[in-house]
Amino acid sequence: MEAGSVGRVETQFLDLPKPVRLDCGRELHQVRVAYETYGTLSPERDNVILVCHALSGDAHAAGVSAAPGESTRDGFGAEDRDGTAGKGLGWWDGMIGPGKAFDTDRYYVVSTNLLGGCRGTTGPSSTDPATGRPYGSDFPVITVADMVRTERAFLDELGIERLAAVAGGSLGGMQALQWAVSYPDQVDAIVVIASTHALHPQGVAWNSIARDAIMRDPDWQGGHYHGTGRAPDAGMGVARMVGHVTYLSAPAMGDRFGRRLQFADDVRYTITEPEYQVESYLRHQAASFVKRFDANTYLYTSRALTYFDLARSFGSLRQAFAAVTARTLLIAFSSDWLYPPAASQEIASALGELGRPVEFHVIDAPYGHDCFLLEEARQTPIIRRFLLETS
Amino acid sequence: MEAGSVGRVETQFLDLPKPVRLDCGRELHQVRVAYETYGTLSPERDNVILVCHALSGDAHAAGVSAAPGESTRDGFGAEDRDGTAGKGLGWWDGMIGPGKAFDTDRYYVVSTNLLGGCRGTTGPSSTDPATGRPYGSDFPVITVADMVRTERAFLDELGIERLAAVAGGSLGGMQALQWAVSYPDQVDAIVVIASTHALHPQGVAWNSIARDAIMRDPDWQGGHYHGTGRAPDAGMGVARMVGHVTYLSAPAMGDRFGRRLQFADDVRYTITEPEYQVESYLRHQAASFVKRFDANTYLYTSRALTYFDLARSFGSLRQAFAAVTARTLLIAFSSDWLYPPAASQEIASALGELGRPVEFHVIDAPYGHDCFLLEEARQTPIIRRFLLETS
Repeated sequence: MEAGSVGRVETQFLDLPKPVRLDCGRELHQVRVAYETYGTLSPERDNVILVCHALSGDAHAAGVSAAPGESTRDGFGAEDRDGTAGKGLGWWDGMIGPGKAFDTDRYYVVSTNLLGGCRGTTGPSSTDPATGRPYGSDFPVITVADMVRTERAFLDELGIERLAAVAGGSLGGMQALQWAVSYPDQVDAIVVIASTHALHPQGVAWNSIARDAIMRDPDWQGGHYHGTGRAPDAGMGVARMVGHVTYLSAPAMGDRFGRRLQFADDVRYTITEPEYQVESYLRHQAASFVKRFDANTYLYTSRALTYFDLARSFGSLRQAFAAVTARTLLIAFSSDWLYPPAASQEIASALGELGRPVEFHVIDAPYGHDCFLLEEARQTPIIRRFLLETS
Repeated sequence: MEAGSVGRVETQFLDLPKPVRLDCGRELHQVRVAYETYGTLSPERDNVILVCHALSGDAHAAGVSAAPGESTRDGFGAEDRDGTAGKGLGWWDGMIGPGKAFDTDRYYVVSTNLLGGCRGTTGPSSTDPATGRPYGSDFPVITVADMVRTERAFLDELGIERLAAVAGGSLGGMQALQWAVSYPDQVDAIVVIASTHALHPQGVAWNSIARDAIMRDPDWQGGHYHGTGRAPDAGMGVARMVGHVTYLSAPAMGDRFGRRLQFADDVRYTITEPEYQVESYLRHQAASFVKRFDANTYLYTSRALTYFDLARSFGSLRQAFAAVTARTLLIAFSSDWLYPPAASQEIASALGELGRPVEFHVIDAPYGHDCFLLEEARQTPIIRRFLLETS
């Protein structure tokens, strides 16, 4: 079977008819959801897979965007190895399509931009209907459960009640877990990749530093920078660079960049200019990220994924999973030190102790957390078989 | 033997009579060196140990400062476990003193603030004699070899030709290595702790991000912030937080902070305030660091330790060590991922292949790079024996 593309796609938008109630106690009114769909909904509406994205993703998960240059496939390797940057390929295009891991010949794949996002779904850069101005930092603090609640309300509008699967990596995997916990009767299976039930303390620290870098930028202006002509690009760049290094493994950085200098074979004795290729690469990543991403969305999303803690919310991981019925597939990567395999093992153990059907794979791969975007070939057979066994 | 304190000490200052020639081709005039000495110089002047500090240290390595509140012992654990912060204890007080690793009953220990520093030795915050204003970013870009050249010139003024040993951790260990390479006939032994012959690419990245965080702060003002009433404290704080996490191991952060919340047993739904104890801790570290450290010194020192690359400078590590005669003691820590044991092993192998006397120990300890400041009890017998065998 030749794996193919879903072709040209356009992001669509749907306005939720009712407000979304949030964990913090507030309600969000006039919530819009940006989404894409791939494949065909079965007459029984029983072939739906919801795909959830990670911190910097969006609804454009597969195919070629009708708005070129909008690709979010800017992880390690993606743009350089595949040459996809600027071609508008979806961030998980290697995984979604005819014959791929999430096979659009069989499944109707739905992808939304998450609540709090900046790529079409209501978020801090959206207009607050109460004031007519952008929310900025008046946007309520949201959680992964809020994101999932929004996805639930959105699918209601599409007339979809049950999901054959929810799938995602990293923060997307958190959403998949939350789906199984929040709506146990409505999810047949979850695919949780390079994710965790609770970010480890060092991950909490990295996220905190990234947020601080943004908020310490005077152009953040307390979160109300929209319309001022200034945005905290400097701080966002630092946040992105910190994130980027945590997404890679040290050996992968070594293999790719080594200590190679930018110019010739000697240093130029400069503090301000990049001397090493890795320094230049990080600056490039920072510069391209700030062009396409909203700083407040970064803050809110980073906060939500830091808050995520199923054991704290329910008393223990076992209690969190007590009502779960979904079959669970966990995939982790040996070199991922931000979402290490140990966390997935804890999920597998808790589900296993409860007698729930769970499958856990550790893929030995060198690229760190970014593996979930890169190691498509090795994830594909695992996911295809798992989904076939579900249906 | 009861290990004791060197007692009350005062930092002294010495002005070098001649300019210091730098690797970049420039010369620095009227260089002042801040230093402290502990113990007694033997009549034969053959008992001198030079101690070199790391990125954020200073000349005050041991004893109680006459200027209280000036302690630089603010690494992980140091202030909290030992309660030394604010009491003016030297940064390596646990290692230097009567009966300690660097035994002042036997050795005359000399500690200087490194070239480019901000604690008494000439650096970017010093007055440029050519203009009468602080150098700021007009300070020349310096290297580890320049630091060592300055230390050599300083010791000449003290009338000290040979060194029984040069010792240091991290950047201090780089200086010790450089001493053995630059002045092979004048160094009997080097003690290189938690260091490397060349920072690995991920370490290059972290240092690059830290420097960028400072330079992106508008208060950096192109490096000429002295006298403006503004300093890049926001960016420096981010740099320090990044550094801090890299100095610790993920398990150590987990043991110490876990995911414990700041208040009560639930989150408060805030983006701007710290929710987790580790978030609060990092902000505290940032705030205390900016009070005592100059941002430009951070930039220059970070650049120097990034440049350090003995294999590049000499063609190979073996060629770099070809003339070395010093006995070498290498100590690394199992959990140190910024200066991992593998780098020390490469040094040991290169020296071993050349038939040079070298000893390498990996101490199994959980605190990451900060171990070199914390694991005093386990380093002490190794260092004491090594030094005794030398003399």
